[in-house]
Amino acid sequence: MPHYTAPVSDMQFLLHDVLNISASGLPGHDELDRDFTEAVLDAAGKLASEVLAPLNVIGDQQGCRLENGVVRTPEGFAAAFEQMKEGGWTALDCDPDYGGQGMPYVMGVATGEMFVSANMAFNMYQGLTHGAYSAIHTHGTEDQKQTYLPKMVSCDWTGTMNLTEPHCGTDLGLLRTKAEPQDDGSYLITGQKIFISAGDHDMAENVIHLVLAKAPGGGEGTKGISLFIVPKFLVNEDGSLGDRNAVSVGALEHKMGIHGNSTCVMNYDGAKGWLLGDLHKGMRAMFTMMNEARLGVGLQGYAGAVPAYQNAVAYAKDRLQGRAVTGTQYPNAAADPLIVHPDIRRSLMDQKSFLEGARMLAFWGAHLIDQADEGDADAEGLISLLTPVIKGFLTDKGFETAVLAQQIYGGHGYIEEHGMSQFVRDARITMIYEGANGVQALDLVGRKLAADGGKHVMAFFEMVKSFCKDHAEGPLAADFIAPLKAASKDLQAAAMFFMQNGMKNPNAALSGSYDFMHLFGHTALGLMWARMAVTAQKMLDSGEGDAVFLKTKLATGRYYMKRQLPMTATHLARIESGSEPVMELEAEAF
Amino acid sequence: MPHYTAPVSDMQFLLHDVLNISASGLPGHDELDRDFTEAVLDAAGKLASEVLAPLNVIGDQQGCRLENGVVRTPEGFAAAFEQMKEGGWTALDCDPDYGGQGMPYVMGVATGEMFVSANMAFNMYQGLTHGAYSAIHTHGTEDQKQTYLPKMVSCDWTGTMNLTEPHCGTDLGLLRTKAEPQDDGSYLITGQKIFISAGDHDMAENVIHLVLAKAPGGGEGTKGISLFIVPKFLVNEDGSLGDRNAVSVGALEHKMGIHGNSTCVMNYDGAKGWLLGDLHKGMRAMFTMMNEARLGVGLQGYAGAVPAYQNAVAYAKDRLQGRAVTGTQYPNAAADPLIVHPDIRRSLMDQKSFLEGARMLAFWGAHLIDQADEGDADAEGLISLLTPVIKGFLTDKGFETAVLAQQIYGGHGYIEEHGMSQFVRDARITMIYEGANGVQALDLVGRKLAADGGKHVMAFFEMVKSFCKDHAEGPLAADFIAPLKAASKDLQAAAMFFMQNGMKNPNAALSGSYDFMHLFGHTALGLMWARMAVTAQKMLDSGEGDAVFLKTKLATGRYYMKRQLPMTATHLARIESGSEPVMELEAEAF
Repeated sequence: MPHYTAPVSDMQFLLHDVLNISASGLPGHDELDRDFTEAVLDAAGKLASEVLAPLNVIGDQQGCRLENGVVRTPEGFAAAFEQMKEGGWTALDCDPDYGGQGMPYVMGVATGEMFVSANMAFNMYQGLTHGAYSAIHTHGTEDQKQTYLPKMVSCDWTGTMNLTEPHCGTDLGLLRTKAEPQDDGSYLITGQKIFISAGDHDMAENVIHLVLAKAPGGGEGTKGISLFIVPKFLVNEDGSLGDRNAVSVGALEHKMGIHGNSTCVMNYDGAKGWLLGDLHKGMRAMFTMMNEARLGVGLQGYAGAVPAYQNAVAYAKDRLQGRAVTGTQYPNAAADPLIVHPDIRRSLMDQKSFLEGARMLAFWGAHLIDQADEGDADAEGLISLLTPVIKGFLTDKGFETAVLAQQIYGGHGYIEEHGMSQFVRDARITMIYEGANGVQALDLVGRKLAADGGKHVMAFFEMVKSFCKDHAEGPLAADFIAPLKAASKDLQAAAMFFMQNGMKNPNAALSGSYDFMHLFGHTALGLMWARMAVTAQKMLDSGEGDAVFLKTKLATGRYYMKRQLPMTATHLARIESGSEPVMELEAEAF
Repeated sequence: MPHYTAPVSDMQFLLHDVLNISASGLPGHDELDRDFTEAVLDAAGKLASEVLAPLNVIGDQQGCRLENGVVRTPEGFAAAFEQMKEGGWTALDCDPDYGGQGMPYVMGVATGEMFVSANMAFNMYQGLTHGAYSAIHTHGTEDQKQTYLPKMVSCDWTGTMNLTEPHCGTDLGLLRTKAEPQDDGSYLITGQKIFISAGDHDMAENVIHLVLAKAPGGGEGTKGISLFIVPKFLVNEDGSLGDRNAVSVGALEHKMGIHGNSTCVMNYDGAKGWLLGDLHKGMRAMFTMMNEARLGVGLQGYAGAVPAYQNAVAYAKDRLQGRAVTGTQYPNAAADPLIVHPDIRRSLMDQKSFLEGARMLAFWGAHLIDQADEGDADAEGLISLLTPVIKGFLTDKGFETAVLAQQIYGGHGYIEEHGMSQFVRDARITMIYEGANGVQALDLVGRKLAADGGKHVMAFFEMVKSFCKDHAEGPLAADFIAPLKAASKDLQAAAMFFMQNGMKNPNAALSGSYDFMHLFGHTALGLMWARMAVTAQKMLDSGEGDAVFLKTKLATGRYYMKRQLPMTATHLARIESGSEPVMELEAEAF
């Protein structure tokens, strides 16, 4: 069975040495000193590695079952969920007014990474709840907040997002679920939703569905959509549970992975619902959940590959096969371990350098959200720009990383016994849900790039430029600054190409959108590595910290800059080839 | 359920217009005129799409079962296997002296592609048999050939390859299975083999295992290995079946995919075996099977992705979602089909341009084997060089292609219902078995590149050079010849880097081996596309053939040259960064 070790030291390095969060001046951040966060991370890591990780394979093998209309989760899930709740982990970054612990989002991301790494399917039950909590927290009336939030913060009640219908996912304007207004101010919801993660299960007293539906008078397309709160059990005035609502599980989907999470077909047959936010402005409220969910999926993207990498490392050190080409390294063993072979290293370094760069990007993104929550509009603009990159790039590369890790095992990675197949199968969904990665690329190039007059992407370029200027002369100039500059130049050239060609031919921009998302991702990770390198070098120079850790960080960063950043040139070449190669053929020619 | 359509026109174009096989001067090839091959391909395509493809999902869902020591294949497999046999498909390219039809290998590859596309797990039963047939055909005594080959050609008896043991796969020198010589000239084989594809099943009267084992006196490592024929049922003098041999199925593996094929743990408990080929020279005999198997797996790599692509195209034309960014294309429909969106096209073009280029490479490779079989040493050297490229590159990109196709389906691709997940899960094994792709890269750079003084890679460069020279002035100069030249230059630079650095530091070459394999693959596909383009252009100029087909071919080729070939620069940059970034860290630092 695969093991999982929480990367506490690496997280501490990011939180304190690189981001220096306790000195960020944000309210409450001054309490986040090194000892405090270490205690939190250690405790979360213990829960993750000792309780959640051992349930990961069990969840995959048993899956969820639908029995007489009720979804049964795999053995051990309910008890582990109680431990999550009792430990206060579900409340970590929630509002203290509703029972939360009020920690910043970056701490939610750090602990969340661990829970995802340990058991992605399991962690979705609380992840979806957090998204629904945020939507109600932002758009709900005080009455709604009082009714739902305390129970959702504690995960006594869990939450879901109901967007997709059989005939529409991305194009929500097509949706058919209806909401009929009732005299008491409520609505009756009727329709079918599919792919509803954590749609039903046996670990919570109630499930609070947030459902997109069309109420009368809203007009065509997405304009007519509103968001409704539809609880599985109606909630009485005193907060106790009342009647079962007219919502039921039609079926469980059979999926490639995340078997431990119940993916439901939900049938609404005149279920009672209450409007959340403004009538006919449901998309706006939904995007509160959606943006959080996209960052959460980006987190899943790399976090899911962390244990895959860890187990690949263990296997590469353990499995004896062949001899080092430079001469036998373990003469007393029957063969040398896999890790002596350059191509095994190449794979492990690809994995390691991506994962640590991705973690930095996710943490930085979370820190930006913490800043945005305090009213920092620049931070908000930047994270809005970065959200599709974090979602799309980190999930594509996270999947690739899991595949690389599986490959280290050879045939043993293909059989289910060692759990490496599960990491790949689970990771695959992250490229699809919460907006398939092609949709992320469209959001990035079609919307985010030009938002607010292109201000945010200019700010990103400016940030890279001034960073490069500040460190142009130091010991990192050749290994980090020069390649970062080159990548950023490619990114700017691509943006320029879109500006020059996109207006007269939108296809010219959109034909390159996917490559742009990856080009941006590599450049962002290049910046992350350069920032980590600057910190590590400074600490080494001043004799702070663990020298082995810091030198490893530098070497890993050099690998990323030398071996991954050259991809930006290929992405640029693809982008600059324009729309003709992409759009030339008639549909019939495929 | 996914559908499959055999690409007969594309194959005919390759066989006749590009390769012109009937004029190749090889014995028997003159009979392969256009009508004849079309009849063969139509019939194979009919069997593939009507009989084998519908069993693909069933095979995945039911898998194989071990019941009282006997493996049961999924419903319908046995009947379909009978149809394969009755149609003579298993005998297509086998020696007429033993019941074969004597067609060239290229026809075996063409029909094989169809069978793999339709049902990869199913086709492995006969694929492994063909490999074992070849080993016995090349290394067996006349007596052995008479005993085994006719039954294997007809697939009344099937074959297996037994290499891997629990503690060793790549490093066969470590194997422990023993062969004790008996007075009657036979051996008693004792040991355990794992991951034995088609190790046992209920579709054949007998299973002929080819087993690597160590006989006394052979010395250490691979030098002491011999190859043995170990039938499941002993064969009497008159060819009838005798006693059950002491070989049994210990377990069936639970795998990520290819559930329809029985992957067995085989236990040999003093099973009777007969030496195949020379004592202590088993590796040589095994490589006959292995090289064929590697080409076969390369074929699986792209062939498995063909139906994934075909179904993605159908879905992209059928699924209505969003509107074309350049303006509504189907005003009477609720939305435009996915295929109007540039990023969907980008994905479909990536798939299409890879698959058609890969098919050309596989067919050309098969044609080289047909030439080599007639004593053409240059052809033999070239295909020996290309084998790891075909295996490694086509399987990596084939898997990527299946993932791209699955992605088109969004959430519907992740559930098992539409069969897209199966294509991905099945494809994953091709990167692993018959030598994991890292081992292919090692074979390419560590062995094949310098073989015969580097003669074969020089011949490849020369071939590209003279091709470019011949077409330097034509209408294809800018779109095809220039990018091919650039790719070839990158490939030569990489080979030069290895030559200059590999001697004093073997790690410098091996750290770039994987990238070199891909760089070679892209260059080879660039050459394939340029060759197809030259043919298509010539036909268009002279008014031959189907103009729409030929123009589509040219457009698809231009896409590959513009959007895929730029990857060669990134691979070269990675290679030229040398071994330091790869090898710098201590093993403990991972």
